[in-house]
Amino acid sequence: MRLKELALHLGLSQTTVSRALNGYPEVNEETRQRVLDAARRYDYRPNASARRLATGRAGAIGIVLPTDRNMLLDPHYIEFQAGLGERLMKDEIDIVLSPSKAGDEMATYRRMAISSRVDAVIVSSPTVDDPRVALLNELGLPFVVHGRTNSPLDYAWLDIDNEGAFRHAAKHLLDLGHRRIGLINGETRHNFALDRDRGFRRALAAHGVEVDENLVAEGIMSDETGYRITARFLAQRPRPTALLVSSMMMSLGALRAIRSAGLELGRDISMIAHDDVIPFLNPDAMVPTMSTTRSSIRAAGTRVAELLMELIVEGRSPASIHELWPVDLVVRASTGPAPRD
Amino acid sequence: MRLKELALHLGLSQTTVSRALNGYPEVNEETRQRVLDAARRYDYRPNASARRLATGRAGAIGIVLPTDRNMLLDPHYIEFQAGLGERLMKDEIDIVLSPSKAGDEMATYRRMAISSRVDAVIVSSPTVDDPRVALLNELGLPFVVHGRTNSPLDYAWLDIDNEGAFRHAAKHLLDLGHRRIGLINGETRHNFALDRDRGFRRALAAHGVEVDENLVAEGIMSDETGYRITARFLAQRPRPTALLVSSMMMSLGALRAIRSAGLELGRDISMIAHDDVIPFLNPDAMVPTMSTTRSSIRAAGTRVAELLMELIVEGRSPASIHELWPVDLVVRASTGPAPRD
Repeated sequence: MRLKELALHLGLSQTTVSRALNGYPEVNEETRQRVLDAARRYDYRPNASARRLATGRAGAIGIVLPTDRNMLLDPHYIEFQAGLGERLMKDEIDIVLSPSKAGDEMATYRRMAISSRVDAVIVSSPTVDDPRVALLNELGLPFVVHGRTNSPLDYAWLDIDNEGAFRHAAKHLLDLGHRRIGLINGETRHNFALDRDRGFRRALAAHGVEVDENLVAEGIMSDETGYRITARFLAQRPRPTALLVSSMMMSLGALRAIRSAGLELGRDISMIAHDDVIPFLNPDAMVPTMSTTRSSIRAAGTRVAELLMELIVEGRSPASIHELWPVDLVVRASTGPAPRD
Repeated sequence: MRLKELALHLGLSQTTVSRALNGYPEVNEETRQRVLDAARRYDYRPNASARRLATGRAGAIGIVLPTDRNMLLDPHYIEFQAGLGERLMKDEIDIVLSPSKAGDEMATYRRMAISSRVDAVIVSSPTVDDPRVALLNELGLPFVVHGRTNSPLDYAWLDIDNEGAFRHAAKHLLDLGHRRIGLINGETRHNFALDRDRGFRRALAAHGVEVDENLVAEGIMSDETGYRITARFLAQRPRPTALLVSSMMMSLGALRAIRSAGLELGRDISMIAHDDVIPFLNPDAMVPTMSTTRSSIRAAGTRVAELLMELIVEGRSPASIHELWPVDLVVRASTGPAPRD
């Protein structure tokens, strides 16, 4: 039985039946119950289309998760998701987490667009030249990019000023007299990491300091990567006297490597880490307290949700959505003057 | 244009068209491209029903999240979700997070069942008499309960032995000579907390020790609750000499209250906390190390996902799914003999 027939049978409009099935408050409880009973009796199972008929929308936001690593274990993703949920919950919008095998991501977005199970999607961790922007544009599926990418299209994005953050942080270390500064970055195939690399290089260039490529390294933003890279940097002679680190998670590993080398953070070596404001990685609770570039990734999640709602509900133009958030430099005890030779 | 017409137009079977639209590998790339082009040209947007036609399934698991508090910030939920995702990602099954206002939860499950957007749902944090079991049974929507509840129905569940865990932990404290033992529990409207309460009381009864109701308290499992309750317990005379705590999160607050009172954990007062094995709450990393009842909530999430797949794909009977996991008691430095008066 189709919606039309069910509506005819009940002597109600299709819209009323659809609204009743979707639990909309405009329909009184008695009518709702009548519709539900009939739907069960005739085994009518409305689909996403029927839901759209009632609301004009799927009431859901999609996120494609790569299956090659479990993003649900990544504290950066989890904080972003918490912020996103905080906003979407207010309007009872679903979040659809759609896993996708490596290489099959584009087909997953395509399916999402065609099946109309979501009203919009979030593009996370864009690469430097991310093909998803052109695809989603072609598919006509609204989206907001958390980050930026090279594209001739005028797409909606929210990003933090990664270039400025790492430029200021590097400048602060240079002002303290450091000249051998190591950069422990995220993967530069991602735009945020490339921006941080740029900021670092610009600060050094502005001070007439040459970048030592042996002191520039990247990897996934884990404790282990931080440890491994720092241990390698510290084995060099002369040693670096300061480190710029792309996440608090990495800074934990870096700190272990510094201790293993018998060095004292804030005296023998300085460190500034990027702080996404993850509750259990509090830079004030570290010993010594950690100097950071700070921007809440949870707040970014909340704002991305808000922007998505504006795109979908208010029909705001994607081209009008370009938010670049400034990043604080918070100086704590992990940074000090460069040690004398 | 409907699926049937699109298939006719293309000279393909409805099943092939549907499979092509859903990206199934059985359909070769050339055919898939032809179908996608036609779908776009004729603005055909298949719905969940079309997807089901191809696969017999929605390819999604639902979780209803209450909007009155952001579960996405709760580390217990997040670990469970990570475990769930680990398993579901292997088969590229979506997770639909569906927020629901307090009191509207039943309607949300009803909508999920009727819209066929998910193949099954997870019932988390069941209350002692949880109405969701009867509702889902009536709706015919497959489900697995993480936990248990009173019900005449033979539903699918996975639970840890909360009663046994807290009975053993309390017995261990009694064996060490403790008689004034405080219980800092989760909310006993939830079945897991009531089971822990029961285990605690049974151990004391078996030792002929009367429960002091001033030393039994409950609340949401946060650091703050742990602090508040412990501070209240420690103000009593005679003071408790041991605490049984329902989560590592609460134990952090309890530890602060103990230090504030000028007491030393493991000497002046003992503590055993329940450890859901949350990465950033490592009992071995605490000072002193924390004795725990231990069961990985991430592993439970993975197993619940597996059981859901068995229900949906293999048609396993819900009545055959009753898993009660034993809980380890891990003794570390936070427990010692009762101090002499």
